[in-house]
Amino acid sequence: MILTVTLNTALDITYRTAALTPHATNRVAEVSERPGGKGINVARVLAALGHESVVTGFVGGRTGDALRELLAAEGPGERAAHAAVSDAPVTDAPVIDALVPIAGTTRRTIAVVDETTGDTTQLNEPGPTVTPAEWAAFLTSYEGLAARADAVALCGSLPPGIHVGAYAELVRLARAAGRPVLLDTSGEPLRRGIAARPDLVKPNADELAQLTGSREPLRATRDARRRGGQAVVASLGAAGLLAATPDGSWRAAPPTAVRGNPTGAGDSAVAGLLSGLVERLPWPERLARAVALSAATVLAPAAGEFDREAYADLLPRVAVTEQSSQPEQESHATRQHR
Amino acid sequence: MILTVTLNTALDITYRTAALTPHATNRVAEVSERPGGKGINVARVLAALGHESVVTGFVGGRTGDALRELLAAEGPGERAAHAAVSDAPVTDAPVIDALVPIAGTTRRTIAVVDETTGDTTQLNEPGPTVTPAEWAAFLTSYEGLAARADAVALCGSLPPGIHVGAYAELVRLARAAGRPVLLDTSGEPLRRGIAARPDLVKPNADELAQLTGSREPLRATRDARRRGGQAVVASLGAAGLLAATPDGSWRAAPPTAVRGNPTGAGDSAVAGLLSGLVERLPWPERLARAVALSAATVLAPAAGEFDREAYADLLPRVAVTEQSSQPEQESHATRQHR
Repeated sequence: MILTVTLNTALDITYRTAALTPHATNRVAEVSERPGGKGINVARVLAALGHESVVTGFVGGRTGDALRELLAAEGPGERAAHAAVSDAPVTDAPVIDALVPIAGTTRRTIAVVDETTGDTTQLNEPGPTVTPAEWAAFLTSYEGLAARADAVALCGSLPPGIHVGAYAELVRLARAAGRPVLLDTSGEPLRRGIAARPDLVKPNADELAQLTGSREPLRATRDARRRGGQAVVASLGAAGLLAATPDGSWRAAPPTAVRGNPTGAGDSAVAGLLSGLVERLPWPERLARAVALSAATVLAPAAGEFDREAYADLLPRVAVTEQSSQPEQESHATRQHR
Repeated sequence: MILTVTLNTALDITYRTAALTPHATNRVAEVSERPGGKGINVARVLAALGHESVVTGFVGGRTGDALRELLAAEGPGERAAHAAVSDAPVTDAPVIDALVPIAGTTRRTIAVVDETTGDTTQLNEPGPTVTPAEWAAFLTSYEGLAARADAVALCGSLPPGIHVGAYAELVRLARAAGRPVLLDTSGEPLRRGIAARPDLVKPNADELAQLTGSREPLRATRDARRRGGQAVVASLGAAGLLAATPDGSWRAAPPTAVRGNPTGAGDSAVAGLLSGLVERLPWPERLARAVALSAATVLAPAAGEFDREAYADLLPRVAVTEQSSQPEQESHATRQHR
């Protein structure tokens, strides 16, 4: 079982409009809702890959009730229907709800998709304030779940009321239980969390630059390792991933640039890395899986879903290149993965 | 008791953002929710004026539950707290919930207020589809309520599934029960509804032009009377109101142009007209009240509320000018109202 933590869960609402006109009244043509927050997105992809996953974090109010109801309704069949190929084998495992109830109301996020330009305008509510008693209840539940997990992923922003060292605390508890832990967050929670020595951190280019002060990815990735990340995998958008690990450094890139909706691409990469970790795949295979899943997510018509056929097609064509062990100097040896 | 009908009720959500940037991710600083839809707004103002009011229409799903809960919580004390003056006498009467439950989910409307420019971007969900059985259940309830009402107001758009002649049907039923009925809608529902001879219609300039093909307000207002409106009161924004009635024609204008948020100003004007109707005020007094309430709504900090102190200050200063009975030719006799 893989445990994903989403402290700031969300009810993700998508509005389709013919065109979004600011400072005017816009008619929404179509409304859809689904459970959201980075850890929940990761769990959904893990389940589609056949891994049993448990989601925890906080949930409350009417939007929280809606989130839980939609999560329960998202059975394997539902996920298979969302995947792009109907004849693909359904290997989905369940997503188990271990969310902790709170008095506050789960936030909404609204993605307004302008059907003329294809652009998305995102509106994110701040989220409920979590009380110290609710945080204490969460910690008790988390310790029990983490002890049974093959891996733990800590994902996304912190809601109001949670102390900035919360992820550091959760990293330490997972490590104390002997469980590998991945951290995917930003800003001060990342800075504090990485110092607690997570097994893996997955910043994007902006998060990495904010953490290290460097926009040079290889330098910044190695700097992030010095700050405590045992392995650091930076997501560089269309350029793929750059990994600095105890076993070596690699770049992994999709065979061609893909166009589409990048929402959830980072979460799919996290799911690829986590599943590869628990399956004890060598790093190049983990990275290839993460890149292929991420690109297949960009290609899927629905935000945050991945296109199974594209994934199967892309996986053997991801180029994984070993980087020189000499800092700041790259090897020219390239090997085609698989 | 005054009955207001809102077939397409809404949970009105307001988001305050530092600045709304299209095609980017925007953090919402503050979220507020309240029961919405034009008839509900009218009822709220009527209650603040001391009139018992009953709201009906359709409500369903989680957003419908939220709407009803917020409506019940909106007691007189709550409305007094919303009014701008704390030492004003609390004369509020109740708003009674007679909404009819449906299987569909009540729509949300989202007003995104850009705190840098003060502009509002509105996103309106389409609303649930109402089934024929639900419409039949509503009609039964409506007939009973209308028979007990001193006046009936039919407000706003029609949700999907409701036939375009619905307001004409509701006008006829109110008239059959001997109750005065006001219609405030637009497009084809207005065109059909006005032909059923409502006692009063309150179009704005755009709705009036769409109905009559004329942008000349006096001509268009008189044309709307010929189409069936026994009295027609056109709201002309900052210019106030123009009324064509069996007793004569008047213009009513605020003493000075007011600046602020016009959301709900039209609904406040409807409440002014309705309350004046049931209190059997002469037309000039009804119009003065409607104009003062409308301007006091523009001046209130919260959208759709009215500033009680501004209302008291503006009321005696509204200029009501009788118009010549000769079509297209205005009298120059102006009288200061009160």
